[in-house]
Amino acid sequence: MELWFTELQTKAHGITTKVKQTLHSEETKYQQLDVIETEEFGTMLVLDGMVMTTDKDEFVYHEMMSHVPLMTHPQPKKVLVVGGGDGGTIREVLKHPSVEKAVLVEIDGQVIEYSKKFLPNIAKELDNPRVEVLVDDGFMHIHQHKNAYDVIMVDSTEPVGPAAKLFEKGFYQGIYEALTADGMFVAQTDNPWFHGDLIRKVFADVKDIFPITRLYTCNIPTYPSGMWTFTIGSKKYDPLSASLPGQLDFETKYYTPEVHQAAFALPKFVKDLIE
Amino acid sequence: MELWFTELQTKAHGITTKVKQTLHSEETKYQQLDVIETEEFGTMLVLDGMVMTTDKDEFVYHEMMSHVPLMTHPQPKKVLVVGGGDGGTIREVLKHPSVEKAVLVEIDGQVIEYSKKFLPNIAKELDNPRVEVLVDDGFMHIHQHKNAYDVIMVDSTEPVGPAAKLFEKGFYQGIYEALTADGMFVAQTDNPWFHGDLIRKVFADVKDIFPITRLYTCNIPTYPSGMWTFTIGSKKYDPLSASLPGQLDFETKYYTPEVHQAAFALPKFVKDLIE
Amino acid sequence: MELWFTELQTKAHGITTKVKQTLHSEETKYQQLDVIETEEFGTMLVLDGMVMTTDKDEFVYHEMMSHVPLMTHPQPKKVLVVGGGDGGTIREVLKHPSVEKAVLVEIDGQVIEYSKKFLPNIAKELDNPRVEVLVDDGFMHIHQHKNAYDVIMVDSTEPVGPAAKLFEKGFYQGIYEALTADGMFVAQTDNPWFHGDLIRKVFADVKDIFPITRLYTCNIPTYPSGMWTFTIGSKKYDPLSASLPGQLDFETKYYTPEVHQAAFALPKFVKDLIE
Amino acid sequence: MELWFTELQTKAHGITTKVKQTLHSEETKYQQLDVIETEEFGTMLVLDGMVMTTDKDEFVYHEMMSHVPLMTHPQPKKVLVVGGGDGGTIREVLKHPSVEKAVLVEIDGQVIEYSKKFLPNIAKELDNPRVEVLVDDGFMHIHQHKNAYDVIMVDSTEPVGPAAKLFEKGFYQGIYEALTADGMFVAQTDNPWFHGDLIRKVFADVKDIFPITRLYTCNIPTYPSGMWTFTIGSKKYDPLSASLPGQLDFETKYYTPEVHQAAFALPKFVKDLIE
Repeated sequence: MELWFTELQTKAHGITTKVKQTLHSEETKYQQLDVIETEEFGTMLVLDGMVMTTDKDEFVYHEMMSHVPLMTHPQPKKVLVVGGGDGGTIREVLKHPSVEKAVLVEIDGQVIEYSKKFLPNIAKELDNPRVEVLVDDGFMHIHQHKNAYDVIMVDSTEPVGPAAKLFEKGFYQGIYEALTADGMFVAQTDNPWFHGDLIRKVFADVKDIFPITRLYTCNIPTYPSGMWTFTIGSKKYDPLSASLPGQLDFETKYYTPEVHQAAFALPKFVKDLIE
Repeated sequence: MELWFTELQTKAHGITTKVKQTLHSEETKYQQLDVIETEEFGTMLVLDGMVMTTDKDEFVYHEMMSHVPLMTHPQPKKVLVVGGGDGGTIREVLKHPSVEKAVLVEIDGQVIEYSKKFLPNIAKELDNPRVEVLVDDGFMHIHQHKNAYDVIMVDSTEPVGPAAKLFEKGFYQGIYEALTADGMFVAQTDNPWFHGDLIRKVFADVKDIFPITRLYTCNIPTYPSGMWTFTIGSKKYDPLSASLPGQLDFETKYYTPEVHQAAFALPKFVKDLIE
Repeated sequence: MELWFTELQTKAHGITTKVKQTLHSEETKYQQLDVIETEEFGTMLVLDGMVMTTDKDEFVYHEMMSHVPLMTHPQPKKVLVVGGGDGGTIREVLKHPSVEKAVLVEIDGQVIEYSKKFLPNIAKELDNPRVEVLVDDGFMHIHQHKNAYDVIMVDSTEPVGPAAKLFEKGFYQGIYEALTADGMFVAQTDNPWFHGDLIRKVFADVKDIFPITRLYTCNIPTYPSGMWTFTIGSKKYDPLSASLPGQLDFETKYYTPEVHQAAFALPKFVKDLIE
Repeated sequence: MELWFTELQTKAHGITTKVKQTLHSEETKYQQLDVIETEEFGTMLVLDGMVMTTDKDEFVYHEMMSHVPLMTHPQPKKVLVVGGGDGGTIREVLKHPSVEKAVLVEIDGQVIEYSKKFLPNIAKELDNPRVEVLVDDGFMHIHQHKNAYDVIMVDSTEPVGPAAKLFEKGFYQGIYEALTADGMFVAQTDNPWFHGDLIRKVFADVKDIFPITRLYTCNIPTYPSGMWTFTIGSKKYDPLSASLPGQLDFETKYYTPEVHQAAFALPKFVKDLIE
């Protein structure tokens, strides 16, 4: 049967992928949540019609969001993940033994529940005792916690709907205050082919607040354009000068120390966005 | 009007992009050739249903194919491009003043003709006096020229149809012989998400023949998975040890000396393909 | 190349048809006008994204709009076509020798021009001396002509955009006055599967004004649901009691005297709409 | 979420309909079976990628297949349905009190099972004591029963896959022998827009065997072209001369005595197929 899921990533371009079956469909309090089984990418989590993560390529996003800051910070103990209800970022964070506590603040509890049910390989560490899961507003959580986290990861959806305020300057200021004196944060900041303006704006906002601001990229097949960016704001440690080991103590499928460095070498048109 | 072009990049996944109008459609002696005007990527050249190049993102492929080897080789004088009838690789090759002659051997003359007509910004150097354009079989050309080229670029379509033999070991042996004593070649070698086996095989074949073999990647939104690879076989010069300038003498939109280095830092799952 | 035109006929259902090439695309003063060459239906005229007519199935609509009223009226001399800029209805009207003058009032001159250019078999009688072509507002024309036409045919687009006012009761009152004492009109009135409410409303409006009101159907593959309706309002002659010949004096591909009668035998759920 | 089911009804044309969820997917012994919930047509049964029936428009096919022969035959007692595992035809057959026994011979037991589960309104009479359900090969059943049925209904899938032999002349000869001396049969015979050749061939084959052969049509939105045909072969009673009541004793949504008559008034291009 020809059953295809299509995500229009811009008004005039998108991906289309063959579907075996729908696993769950629900309009939660915050968004439309769908879990589908695709032929090419396995189980896929879709929020408001946009691919969030898939069995086949989830490791790229989760590794690159987590390990770049955690390999930069010399001793991260307390980590906050804002959003990220699928648990993939948490799973990677826990690979770092220095982390004593990882707090997940996801606004939509249904994302957590159905990720546990249908994406067990991604969500598998959500019940780990080092993890605290809060179904709450990450924006509020940030503003209620001062000097509390060594690393904050903004693992949000696109800047529409519930996540819109997570791309505003005020939020980055709140993050600054929620971080410890040598803390740093990372946020997913979309792709440069269709959303260069967003990258430029976020980078400028973060740069106004943090002494060290960096942009890096990775390749995610199911995300618009296949190239994804992350923006780091750091009070003290520079990911470009991180003291990286020759070999990692944990397993990865995308991140390596070499990839860490290389991810900051921006294509000229991307570099131009932030200079 | 909802008019969409869809390329199934695998049996179960593809891209879909909105079309303003068709500019040319023809079954040439070798393949189906279509030129369409899209909303998101401007003019798009499509061969046998597969996107070859577009106004918006063509620079990535053409820069990364050309400048990596040409910045590695200290004095490339004679360059051969096999395929590449759209002229984009030639355009980039000519940015290197050391190049005295660039030969394009494209089997399908219609690709050249309609690229000149509809993709003038890409094809614009095809009439440059330093360029020799041959409508001929690149496979035969390689085998008829010994010790003739400093750099050879295999700018082919996918390993189906007329380009299949350009992915065979015998072809790489022919290239070896067509190269000068310190020559090198580069070939586009598809993406690691859907065609890891091809990358593994080509890399092994090239490694059997050339003392130096390297794989590098870039991001192309309209190509499958958004990540593309190139394989280099070199007799003497290693692109990883290239002596690169702080700044380029020519304009680019993707390639920079930093990107040159970084492109060889492979994601773990890609590295695993060739080790 | 996989190039497909899709018309969503409702928010959740539509047709998709393979396209060989675009022939013309233009935003006219009134609407988006596209002419495309399809594999299955030949040349297709598309207005505001909706299929208007195609080479392969145009005869159904044009024959059924024209011959039902013209075979009912014993001596139609003056005929008005409102809309119908492709000329197909006019072509059928001229098959009736009693018709001395057929006036076409099409608001969008570009529809006429490009139908003549790309749909010559449909538009071929537009230059016939018995035809008067006016590029004008049919709504105004109706209101400026009293007691002027024996038969009026409302060959409009859907009740959105420029044609919306052609589905209002005031328009039917205007038609009543524009008709001669024994005149009749016919209007296309969409399909009963997705627009039962429109059929019900138009039928009731016409019934308030005309002593004889009838609904009939035909099958058009490229129109929503494949079933199309026409509504007739008549001052004197009843299409159900028309004195039809055993054989037609002209050639047709859909209409026959038997089909004339049968077209008024409504499926139960359609009959229920108007009772 | 944009999840669409597409059926290509020809190589270059099809329908596309929005899907809420998949209800069941299975490769049975005979075919791919899918049950999906669509926005426009409710629950939809799909076999080998082709729409078989939907909540919204199933009544047309089932009423028109059943009531035309059963209102023609003066006293049908034993009725056989070949195929029709969804039960819709059986449901309509049972509306005729003269029918003492209705036998359903469906080759694929999974069609019956999942129709009962997901299409209860269609399958609801399958457990009626007047019904005998056999999971068996209808072709064999026909050849093993002589002079056994007053009316036989061939409610098959398209002439590809398991149903191919149900469109061969030998099958119609077998039906002739399985019928009582005044028996008749009806078969669905696809649409005249894309499969005129099939209609022509089946009609000629049936005409060679049966003294009375008739073709009639109806409108089904989810079937190719929206127009569907049925072919009747009858030993004695002519559906065109059936003695029909002014009003039916049972409820219908499409069939009426008027529609019965009108369904045989063929559009000229369809009539030409069988003359």
